[in-house]
Amino acid sequence: MTTTRHAALDMSSEEFRTLGHRLVDRIAEQMARMPAGLVKPDEPAAAVRGALESERGLPEEGTDPQELLARAASLLFEHSLFNGHPRFMGYITSSPAPIGVLSDLLAAAVNPNCGSWALAPMATEIEAQTVRWIAEFVGYPASCGGLLVSGGNMANFVCFLAARRAKAGWDVRKAGLGGPAPRLTAYASSETHTWIQKAADLFGLGTDAIRWIPVDEYQRMKTGDLRKQIAVDQARGELPFLVVGTAGTVSTGAVDPLREIGLICREHDLWFHVDGAYGALAAAIPDAPEDLRALSDADSVAVDPHKWLYAPLEAGCALVRRPDDLRNAFSYHPPYYHFADDVLNFVDYGPQNSRGFRALKVWLALQQIGRAGYVETIAEDMRLSRRLFRLFQDDPRFEALTQSLSIATFRYVPPDLRTKVGQPEAEEWLNNLNRDLLTRVEKSGEAFLSNAVIGGKFALRACIVNFRTSDGDIDALPGILGRIADQR
Amino acid sequence: MTTTRHAALDMSSEEFRTLGHRLVDRIAEQMARMPAGLVKPDEPAAAVRGALESERGLPEEGTDPQELLARAASLLFEHSLFNGHPRFMGYITSSPAPIGVLSDLLAAAVNPNCGSWALAPMATEIEAQTVRWIAEFVGYPASCGGLLVSGGNMANFVCFLAARRAKAGWDVRKAGLGGPAPRLTAYASSETHTWIQKAADLFGLGTDAIRWIPVDEYQRMKTGDLRKQIAVDQARGELPFLVVGTAGTVSTGAVDPLREIGLICREHDLWFHVDGAYGALAAAIPDAPEDLRALSDADSVAVDPHKWLYAPLEAGCALVRRPDDLRNAFSYHPPYYHFADDVLNFVDYGPQNSRGFRALKVWLALQQIGRAGYVETIAEDMRLSRRLFRLFQDDPRFEALTQSLSIATFRYVPPDLRTKVGQPEAEEWLNNLNRDLLTRVEKSGEAFLSNAVIGGKFALRACIVNFRTSDGDIDALPGILGRIADQR
Repeated sequence: MTTTRHAALDMSSEEFRTLGHRLVDRIAEQMARMPAGLVKPDEPAAAVRGALESERGLPEEGTDPQELLARAASLLFEHSLFNGHPRFMGYITSSPAPIGVLSDLLAAAVNPNCGSWALAPMATEIEAQTVRWIAEFVGYPASCGGLLVSGGNMANFVCFLAARRAKAGWDVRKAGLGGPAPRLTAYASSETHTWIQKAADLFGLGTDAIRWIPVDEYQRMKTGDLRKQIAVDQARGELPFLVVGTAGTVSTGAVDPLREIGLICREHDLWFHVDGAYGALAAAIPDAPEDLRALSDADSVAVDPHKWLYAPLEAGCALVRRPDDLRNAFSYHPPYYHFADDVLNFVDYGPQNSRGFRALKVWLALQQIGRAGYVETIAEDMRLSRRLFRLFQDDPRFEALTQSLSIATFRYVPPDLRTKVGQPEAEEWLNNLNRDLLTRVEKSGEAFLSNAVIGGKFALRACIVNFRTSDGDIDALPGILGRIADQR
Repeated sequence: MTTTRHAALDMSSEEFRTLGHRLVDRIAEQMARMPAGLVKPDEPAAAVRGALESERGLPEEGTDPQELLARAASLLFEHSLFNGHPRFMGYITSSPAPIGVLSDLLAAAVNPNCGSWALAPMATEIEAQTVRWIAEFVGYPASCGGLLVSGGNMANFVCFLAARRAKAGWDVRKAGLGGPAPRLTAYASSETHTWIQKAADLFGLGTDAIRWIPVDEYQRMKTGDLRKQIAVDQARGELPFLVVGTAGTVSTGAVDPLREIGLICREHDLWFHVDGAYGALAAAIPDAPEDLRALSDADSVAVDPHKWLYAPLEAGCALVRRPDDLRNAFSYHPPYYHFADDVLNFVDYGPQNSRGFRALKVWLALQQIGRAGYVETIAEDMRLSRRLFRLFQDDPRFEALTQSLSIATFRYVPPDLRTKVGQPEAEEWLNNLNRDLLTRVEKSGEAFLSNAVIGGKFALRACIVNFRTSDGDIDALPGILGRIADQR
């Protein structure tokens, strides 16, 4: 009675097994080869497009899937940047944990829709457990509400929206931000990631609603200025609602004075949000900056497993102290509608309806090495960063600028300019020199750095969120940079 | 010189190969077993939590990854709903294409950060090609801007935000929606998916800014009412900016009169957005509703590859006619980015910074069966839905209610109530009966349906976005439902 449909897109389990084994082999070969290769090939966009035949239209007829997977693997392994390479130290993208790579295969095979419990019973429970474990790891109450999202922007957005709903004195979801409502204002240091601009922009406050608080010489928010600005705005009839403390700024890894910011928020009944997308996970490390412990006071925390838990992209996480603050900000079920009280439907906690199973890769990696393993691995990244910073301090060709968490910043200063540092013309020349050096390092494929701008200085920046980076890679870096600088 | 770091989280390529092969085998076994099993096991939340040991805290020490992967596979294969099952016909979640499952493995192994070209050269070009191919498939200009996002909500949000920026007569990103600005109003039929409420809410307009336009007996927007409402709002000094036409409503698959809506938008200089998350992909099918062709007139279209392109979760897609409308709505250029501008950086097109590689699974599946293969597969889903509808029309135990695209709605009507249909008491009784029947069908695991409410009637709803569903599964459904109904 049950005829079988033979859809071209389907595969027999035997075919799946054969293709899967070949793909796993191909990836394993690449893993073995990668560390000795370039971090990134040096080629112009036209070459990448040529390899892809990017002008080709949608094919009318099908192609053998084995051939397709082999071609895709070749195209990607030959024309990609490898953030799993030991000398990848750019931005804040981690090397992907191998167990996380396999997890994404399993997650796609099960294909649970993690928007509702009924559609994804086990996956929902695994996500809930993962959220509790992340909270536990960073020292946040495990009774919080939380969910996995696409990354740091979205994690911060979710918290921002929970704050907006909780602190606006009217029904902001229904009435919006127009009309007679007072202007909501948000406070963040001048070193805050652009997510705060995007949040103020997208969620209707406008970027004018952000009060940029100056930072001290360590790129930390000046809390005296925060107090003053809140008072000014209150006197003007505006409605301060949110202060963002950053735990690990994107440029230098600075940690804001979170303890003091938390106190100020309590005094003024403001929502205290910690952007710990990068740095919150360092709270578990014994010698981490003391202020990281104060993220436990926050109303909400953003933290990215695809940063310092080394999950493959994408995995961000929003933690909100009171689960009801998430439900109040996102749920669309009218009060008379009764979902069973004993299950969690993640659709009530964030902006997505259909949701993939991001938690699996985080959940498995946390179990593979345990809390102790993560503490050791993150601490080692931090140690390597301090080691790198000392190398630059001791090397006369470089000016070491900042070091915090696992980020070191520095710049190359040629001998003839050493006495002129600080003079406007020399500074401009140094900025251009280092900008050019960064480009040439990237082209060399020997290492991958990114940049920061520190007090007007264009700095090179090494961020180590990479369990493959070793002492050897660190020790090689000044030599590589010096040689490339000399090749001008 | 280059010492190697032995991180607990790393794996040798040999270990990866062994674990990968075992996991592929486990998934292949499950694929072979699944069609003969239940769509979903019947178990309470406590049983799922018990199997997981959900109260356990974060483990201190690590565990062998092979053991972890085996346990994860067992937990998930024993306690999940399988949307790849031939008799899964619920919501609009598709069965996942096997090549898409393997693609997610490859994507995670490469781990490109598709926020910027420099971090993901080939992946960015593949995503750009995928967007063009999707546009081509649905009949939209391939010169559009677009990107892959998490799903239908986000795809619609991206288009909504592009519209807000393009049509507000002031710098809405900077100044926000407060103050002296006129109120922006959006127009959508009463059958529109909840994304429109979430959009109006999250992006600061408030849900009061939505003008709900009534629908006709086929659940299609009444364009006469749309015209009247726009005139009323303009007379009141409000600023109409966006009309949403739905191509495939979530309840019944209805397609709004898109051609007429497009004309009205042009007359009034409004942004014409098509929510085609589900139905846009049917525009390629010869006998699809004629109005689907008019999505080519839209300023933006949302379309979900994780629906009718059968991609594993997550894959939504936003298409915007003029790429600059995306850039104007989303681009920021912070000092720590150092990107070339002759290439596409997807960070400029949407709300995310770090972005995973969702395009690969869509790109490979499109090539596996080509345009022709997708036309055939989607058309077959639609044919099966019509076949199901006819079975319910011909079966005296059921009342067939609606059929459009691949959604059929119907309800069970026992013999003693057949003459009383339409009477308030009988209707209430039928609603309770069918609500209960839906629950019992789900518990049986023999099939998975969801529901719709049509003119006050609680209807069962079968949505076929499933390349495994066959004539046999369709023909079995009335018998399964009748038997379960009789078991009361």
